Amino acid sequence: MSNTFGKRFRLTSFGESHGIALGGVVDGCPPGIELSIEKIQQELDRRRPGQDQFSTLRNEADKVEILSGMFEGKTTGMPIGFIIRNSDHKPEDYDDLKNLYRLSHADYTWHRKYGVRDYRGGGRSSAREHVSRVVGGAIARQILETKGIEIAAYTSQIGNISLDKSYTELDLKTIEQSPVRCPDKDLAEKMLAFLNKVKGDGDTVGGAVTCIIKNVPIGLGEPVFDRLQAQLAFAMMSINAAKGFEYGKGFAAATMKGSEHNDEFISDNGTIRTKTNHSGGIQGGISNGEDIFFKVAFKPVATIFKEQKTTDISGAEVVMTARGRHDVCVVPRAVPVVEAMAAMAILDAML
Amino acid sequence: MSNTFGKRFRLTSFGESHGIALGGVVDGCPPGIELSIEKIQQELDRRRPGQDQFSTLRNEADKVEILSGMFEGKTTGMPIGFIIRNSDHKPEDYDDLKNLYRLSHADYTWHRKYGVRDYRGGGRSSAREHVSRVVGGAIARQILETKGIEIAAYTSQIGNISLDKSYTELDLKTIEQSPVRCPDKDLAEKMLAFLNKVKGDGDTVGGAVTCIIKNVPIGLGEPVFDRLQAQLAFAMMSINAAKGFEYGKGFAAATMKGSEHNDEFISDNGTIRTKTNHSGGIQGGISNGEDIFFKVAFKPVATIFKEQKTTDISGAEVVMTARGRHDVCVVPRAVPVVEAMAAMAILDAML
Amino acid sequence: MSNTFGKRFRLTSFGESHGIALGGVVDGCPPGIELSIEKIQQELDRRRPGQDQFSTLRNEADKVEILSGMFEGKTTGMPIGFIIRNSDHKPEDYDDLKNLYRLSHADYTWHRKYGVRDYRGGGRSSAREHVSRVVGGAIARQILETKGIEIAAYTSQIGNISLDKSYTELDLKTIEQSPVRCPDKDLAEKMLAFLNKVKGDGDTVGGAVTCIIKNVPIGLGEPVFDRLQAQLAFAMMSINAAKGFEYGKGFAAATMKGSEHNDEFISDNGTIRTKTNHSGGIQGGISNGEDIFFKVAFKPVATIFKEQKTTDISGAEVVMTARGRHDVCVVPRAVPVVEAMAAMAILDAML
Amino acid sequence: MSNTFGKRFRLTSFGESHGIALGGVVDGCPPGIELSIEKIQQELDRRRPGQDQFSTLRNEADKVEILSGMFEGKTTGMPIGFIIRNSDHKPEDYDDLKNLYRLSHADYTWHRKYGVRDYRGGGRSSAREHVSRVVGGAIARQILETKGIEIAAYTSQIGNISLDKSYTELDLKTIEQSPVRCPDKDLAEKMLAFLNKVKGDGDTVGGAVTCIIKNVPIGLGEPVFDRLQAQLAFAMMSINAAKGFEYGKGFAAATMKGSEHNDEFISDNGTIRTKTNHSGGIQGGISNGEDIFFKVAFKPVATIFKEQKTTDISGAEVVMTARGRHDVCVVPRAVPVVEAMAAMAILDAML
Repeated sequence: MSNTFGKRFRLTSFGESHGIALGGVVDGCPPGIELSIEKIQQELDRRRPGQDQFSTLRNEADKVEILSGMFEGKTTGMPIGFIIRNSDHKPEDYDDLKNLYRLSHADYTWHRKYGVRDYRGGGRSSAREHVSRVVGGAIARQILETKGIEIAAYTSQIGNISLDKSYTELDLKTIEQSPVRCPDKDLAEKMLAFLNKVKGDGDTVGGAVTCIIKNVPIGLGEPVFDRLQAQLAFAMMSINAAKGFEYGKGFAAATMKGSEHNDEFISDNGTIRTKTNHSGGIQGGISNGEDIFFKVAFKPVATIFKEQKTTDISGAEVVMTARGRHDVCVVPRAVPVVEAMAAMAILDAML
Repeated sequence: MSNTFGKRFRLTSFGESHGIALGGVVDGCPPGIELSIEKIQQELDRRRPGQDQFSTLRNEADKVEILSGMFEGKTTGMPIGFIIRNSDHKPEDYDDLKNLYRLSHADYTWHRKYGVRDYRGGGRSSAREHVSRVVGGAIARQILETKGIEIAAYTSQIGNISLDKSYTELDLKTIEQSPVRCPDKDLAEKMLAFLNKVKGDGDTVGGAVTCIIKNVPIGLGEPVFDRLQAQLAFAMMSINAAKGFEYGKGFAAATMKGSEHNDEFISDNGTIRTKTNHSGGIQGGISNGEDIFFKVAFKPVATIFKEQKTTDISGAEVVMTARGRHDVCVVPRAVPVVEAMAAMAILDAML
Repeated sequence: MSNTFGKRFRLTSFGESHGIALGGVVDGCPPGIELSIEKIQQELDRRRPGQDQFSTLRNEADKVEILSGMFEGKTTGMPIGFIIRNSDHKPEDYDDLKNLYRLSHADYTWHRKYGVRDYRGGGRSSAREHVSRVVGGAIARQILETKGIEIAAYTSQIGNISLDKSYTELDLKTIEQSPVRCPDKDLAEKMLAFLNKVKGDGDTVGGAVTCIIKNVPIGLGEPVFDRLQAQLAFAMMSINAAKGFEYGKGFAAATMKGSEHNDEFISDNGTIRTKTNHSGGIQGGISNGEDIFFKVAFKPVATIFKEQKTTDISGAEVVMTARGRHDVCVVPRAVPVVEAMAAMAILDAML
Repeated sequence: MSNTFGKRFRLTSFGESHGIALGGVVDGCPPGIELSIEKIQQELDRRRPGQDQFSTLRNEADKVEILSGMFEGKTTGMPIGFIIRNSDHKPEDYDDLKNLYRLSHADYTWHRKYGVRDYRGGGRSSAREHVSRVVGGAIARQILETKGIEIAAYTSQIGNISLDKSYTELDLKTIEQSPVRCPDKDLAEKMLAFLNKVKGDGDTVGGAVTCIIKNVPIGLGEPVFDRLQAQLAFAMMSINAAKGFEYGKGFAAATMKGSEHNDEFISDNGTIRTKTNHSGGIQGGISNGEDIFFKVAFKPVATIFKEQKTTDISGAEVVMTARGRHDVCVVPRAVPVVEAMAAMAILDAML
């Protein structure tokens, strides 16, 4: 297993969905930074289950306890250890899953790789592991904010309902006003209605998250391999259920001519900038000072409330129906996770 | 800079486009493997410039010299040092670029980050650096082949001409029959005609490469961060001009329901497999034994033979027209690079 | 800071001497190993303060809580998070040290490097950090034991009282019978008497620990840089107060001829072994199957109960006398720490 | 194998004693530094075989060729690839060693670990690999010199002839005046006479090297694990034939009282310094601005011109006598290697 993210700003994460606690250690945090624990808690609250009708009803306070690395309200440069105790774990909900492989979950591959299997809610393969990332990201974000760097992500697609406007035409301050975290009010309504229908069918659906990072200094990224886009892609593709990553014009760039895609350099009161930003803020693997933006695709939640065929661990075919508490779509709750991973990746590239 | 790829099977690459030589060191190579230097050379030949009318006319033999790590035709487990000398470098072609920033190239960001600038053909930011990757990949591929693992990539899109069939309907043995490396004969013809037109216009165009990896053992990938898809995404997004990565159903998964996307487990003569493969061979971050497949989007080549506005290093606006020798589309020559990076990423995950 | 030890079996440690808790995360632990938490606690008890008259009187239960990575008594391959809460922290003991630099402590260098300073008992620079290492080592040791590998360390020197016999002439089972952890009964008595005298003088003294690792498989170590002795030296020199490391004949080898030092290969019932073991179980950077043995020198504890001159943070010279609770000699309590670091280094080299 | 040294300033080394070439890649080198290739060559010349009557007569020009990473005389921040071709390799000298294990060499352990064996002069286990380190070190040293940091090492012991004076009493500029590299003229004569005698006996002898690093900035070292002394110990113990490492008072500290060993802080015209330097320039794992000094013990060369018993690869006992060209004592030629590793370790800690 590899449970450490980052080279300079490093999060090492631990914990299982239905174990005693989750937590982690943030190492490489610069000293002397004022850290608000409330702001960390706010980010956890954004990811918390049970915040609306489409997310799992599991009731977790997700209260973070910081154990080290701070003194008199500031970071000391020492590692920040933290834990989040599980309270509403119901491992017994999973007893009848003990011997079968849930479709498109990690059950089969993890069992084959590790030999043993913590079947309680997927154990460590559960998206509940993301709480540790959200804490790490909330610390990174506060450090980035001291340098004026802002990160915002939003739901840009649920099923076939897709927000095709550029982020520059949206008011990103309205993201949190809708439970689906889409800043286009009309589209947010449509997404809500669609999620209600999907939920009624006992089904789930995929979607996408778009993320924008503003005021990034010129010079982040370490070619030829650790290009900034490679680090961001790695960070995003390490999130549960992520299936694709694109930045700048992304897959649309495949259809473009050089004469259309090239970003003209201009002088903006003495500062060299680009007139357009098809490059998405990264050229030659290094940030160029323009906004960085990228999109992450997520598959539909694998647990559905319909009968499905699968096999048990002996290979015998069985029919299963899910029980328990599950999301209809991960995308709204993935928004803070995308931001957290982006914050850690950018800070790691800066230090 | 970060010029080492991989954790266990590691390529460290060096060299500039118009310097004395490029090369690298492969460390972590298992001992006792018969290595064919001819096969390494064949892969270099596939990426070599000047092989058709759409690629740069630069004339390089790209002859590899292996300096260490082999004894009596076999690997010894020791690091494999290799070099490829540049012969047809014409740094003088670049003299008039010395003081200006080419559009959508690495000129500006690298100059800002490193302070000095090797303006000769982009120096190390040139895609010519990929020769080192092709050597590393060709070594990795030969090791994978001893375990039955096969890798094949092809051009699946050039501009709006897109090959939408699944790879399972194609004859992958025909890839090399067309200079565009598209295994659909009709589409390959259309792509060729289109490239001729774009070349005539002095323009360039983007595209995409699809890659398939067969016979991957169950168990590759190291969650929670170093998931196999995260490692592949990192590898692909480290290639020059890559703008997007998706695996399995990719961005299309965002539009799907759980009931459509889930891959049913079945027993295939005692072996547990999946009936469909929307997961793209990876579940919970770990390979499940099914084919792995993914797609990489590439932007159009930035150097075009049309007048363009940019600035010089002082910020003054200038008009430039490219000279020299350049590709119309990187995609056909990116095919062996995608394969090389895939081979190294998979072998690295196996060791 | 760098708070992660190991490449494959990795301990990430956190916590300060007078903070809320210390702890860590063990990542890379193989799955399916039965782990006894009692055995982990036993190792912590061996390092616990207040166990005899020569160690600090600080009263800490040092009770470990395992938070993840185990299921039904066995490791799962998932990261093992653990914490040890501080109970007897008296930060107020340190208020008058807030503005001065204790001699030969980390106060000055850490203040200069990090800018902020957690002056409470040295914060993270305190040897109390070793509790996390002892937990990591106790986990590693249990895994090594399943493969028959045994590790034993003992006090081989305190001041000028030095145990010069080879470990092969000692009964290593008697180490724990003396509070100084010296397996030579007579010498142990002398050391005790000497420590009593030093304590009476308000002074402290240095010493050395010898460590033996038996039944190490042939082949550990990764030349040319990560030789097994380099990894062990790194591990030992990362321990607080360590000043020197030697293995095999060590510094005495400098005085020897090749004809004296060379270890003759012999056939021992078909197994190739060496007749002597001047090499200390490592040849060419790789274990050869013979016992590995090495010695670590420790400086005297820096806190003494005598008046000493130093400066305050403004550079003004001041006279200080220590208060609080401190060891007379670190060596007896360093014995389990040396074993812990050895266990982690060896397991890391094996995986 | 692990052939990369360093985390930020990284040397990746390749090549065998009797292969085509040795070489390496230096990555992480800061841009804009004027590099003298002559100075690199001078360091290689200091390590070159055949420079006096005690070193192997192998005749190698050891001419370095820099292939990348420099432009107009300066570093560019790009990786510096370099090679040194072997010329006087006589693999046939080793034909009769093909099937036996030389005593206290790497033959046995490397054969067991890697399965295959490049028996030509020890292949990669030969100290000839150090040429790559010397190049890396010579680059690092030039960068350190721009910051006023100086490194000097000398022979402080050969057999029982030991230079016990502190380095502060020696004129380090005279080191190169004697072929044994001992700055005490009388002792140097005695060492020479002793080496002549040992050579006449067909034997070899061990020794020690002392190294001093001046003008190191305060703040190098990354506790709790990557303490500066741990990094230096690792670097030194990765050198062929090294058996021990100590810094500051080293093993002598074990015999001292706290009241003797503690370094008093004083104010030196407003700068806080220590009155004595028993700490060896490192406190709490971090440089304190005083001179860093350490000592490395080396075992005698394993190849002697006397009959010795060993076994062949089948385990049968055989009698062998060495042929070929070998050093009587590695220590004089280890001096530039110790300096090279020190330079790389210090620069790596600074970046």
